Amino acid sequence: MFDPIEKLKEFIRQPSVSTDSRCAEGMKGAQELVSGLLATLGFSVEVVKTERHPIILAERRGEPDWPHVVIYGHYDVQPADPLNLWKTPAFEPTIIGNRIYGRGAADNKGPLITNIAAVALALEANPKLPLKITFLIEGEEEMGSPSFPQFLERYADRLRAADFVFLSDTALPNEQQVVLTCGLRGLTLFDVHLTGAKGDLHSGLHGGVLRNPIQALAEILASLHTADGRVNVPGFYDGVLDVHPWEREELKKLGADEAAYADFLGIDTFYTTPGFSPFESARFQPTLEFNGIGGGYQGEGTKTVIPSKAFAKLSCRLVPNQQPDCIKQLVMDAIRARTPKGIKLEFVDQHKGEPYVVVPPGRSNTPANQSPVLARAFRAADSAITEVWGRPPLYLREGGSVPIIAEIKRVTGLDSVMFGLFLPEDNLHAPNEGFNLDVMKKGTETTRRILVALAAAQG
Amino acid sequence: MFDPIEKLKEFIRQPSVSTDSRCAEGMKGAQELVSGLLATLGFSVEVVKTERHPIILAERRGEPDWPHVVIYGHYDVQPADPLNLWKTPAFEPTIIGNRIYGRGAADNKGPLITNIAAVALALEANPKLPLKITFLIEGEEEMGSPSFPQFLERYADRLRAADFVFLSDTALPNEQQVVLTCGLRGLTLFDVHLTGAKGDLHSGLHGGVLRNPIQALAEILASLHTADGRVNVPGFYDGVLDVHPWEREELKKLGADEAAYADFLGIDTFYTTPGFSPFESARFQPTLEFNGIGGGYQGEGTKTVIPSKAFAKLSCRLVPNQQPDCIKQLVMDAIRARTPKGIKLEFVDQHKGEPYVVVPPGRSNTPANQSPVLARAFRAADSAITEVWGRPPLYLREGGSVPIIAEIKRVTGLDSVMFGLFLPEDNLHAPNEGFNLDVMKKGTETTRRILVALAAAQG
Repeated sequence: MFDPIEKLKEFIRQPSVSTDSRCAEGMKGAQELVSGLLATLGFSVEVVKTERHPIILAERRGEPDWPHVVIYGHYDVQPADPLNLWKTPAFEPTIIGNRIYGRGAADNKGPLITNIAAVALALEANPKLPLKITFLIEGEEEMGSPSFPQFLERYADRLRAADFVFLSDTALPNEQQVVLTCGLRGLTLFDVHLTGAKGDLHSGLHGGVLRNPIQALAEILASLHTADGRVNVPGFYDGVLDVHPWEREELKKLGADEAAYADFLGIDTFYTTPGFSPFESARFQPTLEFNGIGGGYQGEGTKTVIPSKAFAKLSCRLVPNQQPDCIKQLVMDAIRARTPKGIKLEFVDQHKGEPYVVVPPGRSNTPANQSPVLARAFRAADSAITEVWGRPPLYLREGGSVPIIAEIKRVTGLDSVMFGLFLPEDNLHAPNEGFNLDVMKKGTETTRRILVALAAAQG
Repeated sequence: MFDPIEKLKEFIRQPSVSTDSRCAEGMKGAQELVSGLLATLGFSVEVVKTERHPIILAERRGEPDWPHVVIYGHYDVQPADPLNLWKTPAFEPTIIGNRIYGRGAADNKGPLITNIAAVALALEANPKLPLKITFLIEGEEEMGSPSFPQFLERYADRLRAADFVFLSDTALPNEQQVVLTCGLRGLTLFDVHLTGAKGDLHSGLHGGVLRNPIQALAEILASLHTADGRVNVPGFYDGVLDVHPWEREELKKLGADEAAYADFLGIDTFYTTPGFSPFESARFQPTLEFNGIGGGYQGEGTKTVIPSKAFAKLSCRLVPNQQPDCIKQLVMDAIRARTPKGIKLEFVDQHKGEPYVVVPPGRSNTPANQSPVLARAFRAADSAITEVWGRPPLYLREGGSVPIIAEIKRVTGLDSVMFGLFLPEDNLHAPNEGFNLDVMKKGTETTRRILVALAAAQG
């Protein structure tokens, strides 16, 4: 059995920043570390080339009637900038107390090593464990997984033979309470570009003559929400999945404190979809958000121009069963209809991701045809978490997006069991990223028990 | 008599960019060139120190009953960037056909040399010309004349003894038609800064929970105009001076072509104050304009943040008799009242300028107490322009702002006769600035005749 903490240190030392071409060595090192580790555990490892960074597909094959889990993770990390804000070197793992610091410690190197360690322990105890395991470890997650859809299509048949996906790339609200994430928001993103005159104009000579594209943009953006905060686009809410009473109940058990949340955000009042608490709104309702805006003179002092151009970056977070393409069309149509004469409109399409939902077994809205192995996996996870952490997990939809989860579902039909291990203080995508070693230890034991229970149910 | 074109070339060779500290030599060279030239013409020259660039005060004194004209100009120029767009070197004067190219050729070096040459010719023909002349040539016009108000206060008594101000720092609509500018818009400028959460937030985890400052900014800005294009701020139009029928008639004589104007701007529809043509709207009506906007992520691709901050740069062009401070207060009050809960609002005050109007003699609304010398100056200018250019000038208010004109009026009581010499093709503040040498020649002769006529009326 390898030492998980030493392996995690080696892994963090590889600067595997997928978006930085200067990190080719680190990407290769990280990939080889994971591939090599899985090979020593007896996995048949395939390193699948893509246009950018390869995907590791490592299989432990078995009998046709064994349950089959796909364990997802990623070996790439976010850039470490700004380096001057790090208290310890970003790519030199440093243990302080019960935490290990370094870029990727929590996203996703720590949780990935946790799950590999759990597999290693389970196989060490029982080399004949009746469980098929496929590791699917990509190197482009922090770039938006551009090669993943093509890979999925190509390997769909092999993946479709599995029963479900297991991953640790979501959040743990605090050290005591595990969440099994049962839903993710999707998203659709695009930019709006407006043009008025063919160049910037002197606001004295020409002011009062023509439409200013900043004014037009402000009027269009202002029209996209009602006064009470709903999205003011016809049809926007048509597909929105109802919130089941058990979901609201489950959320209440989280015991989140509105005052503490407002303080964390630095705001004195919330602004939510009417009828939803802040915690409900982020999980159960879609948004239309403005991520950026620009136009005209933005420097020091003044420049008395009527700008030629202005733009905004829009994104919608979508809940099941909204369709990104359909929502984008509705919003674009509304913007087009509200663009005044004298202003030219262009859209720049950005990326998108489907929302995702899975209902754990035994809920009022659990699908009748739910995969029995998936249901067993949820039950095994519930028991293991209750035993190891001392209280049962909560089943919650999250506000964030992991588009590949819906993509895997769409292409292979597989649902996901998302066992979150990041704590709020882990500083994902930020300086001083860290991972809690007690969480790592408990996570390893939890995943080990889930795997053993799944196999035992079979045997 | 000096050679005006050679002197203009020398002047252009001095890179007198007042905002660029690397141009100290050029500023000094330009100042010394003008001071020296006026000294050789017999003027008593004082170089008045300011915090930045000195003001040249050059006087030709005379008998108490002689008329007294103050000729205004400036020896500083705009920066020449972007240099790569210049077809000839920015600070190496180049004559092509009847045009001289170089930074400052039109703004304001060419027109200033034109007026100095006219003085030189008049004094050469009659060294005893019964006319007091004060040249007032500043070096900070392109910076917004920061030292000018303090200078005015200090020299108010000496300036107050004059009869009127004469300057050539306004526009000529085409080579055939001179305009004597009778009004200028004022302005007030400030920035609006909004803050939501204390930092940028992940739009997945927190989207749907709080107000986005870009949305708040869009809603506030959108509220500042009515659907038909008027400024939607209570009291905004209260002080607006009525347009006299003669002003509309005068404007018609300009024969400006709306289709050609739309084509020049690159727009397919105008957007004016209701009831005003585009040409009227820019001259006779105030505006509230958005010069810049910014917030959140503006780079390539996407970043799914809810930004903490957003800002906009606002300016109002004001017509007589709107007061900049009063209008700014009205607009700020409206913005404050329209800022939603959960958003912090801050203003950054920028500069301002009063609007200005002077009514030429013989109009229905000419003030009864108009200075007789001012009235004579207008009549002399009308005759000289008619003789030299073959048609009388038009008397028009302009949309632009020259704040020092109102400031001079406020402090000294002096009105201005504005004899414009810039053509639309002169590219002021842009690459390939040039000045028409035929305009220079006709301008010199016109100003000479005005000065001689004023003196003759006295004699």
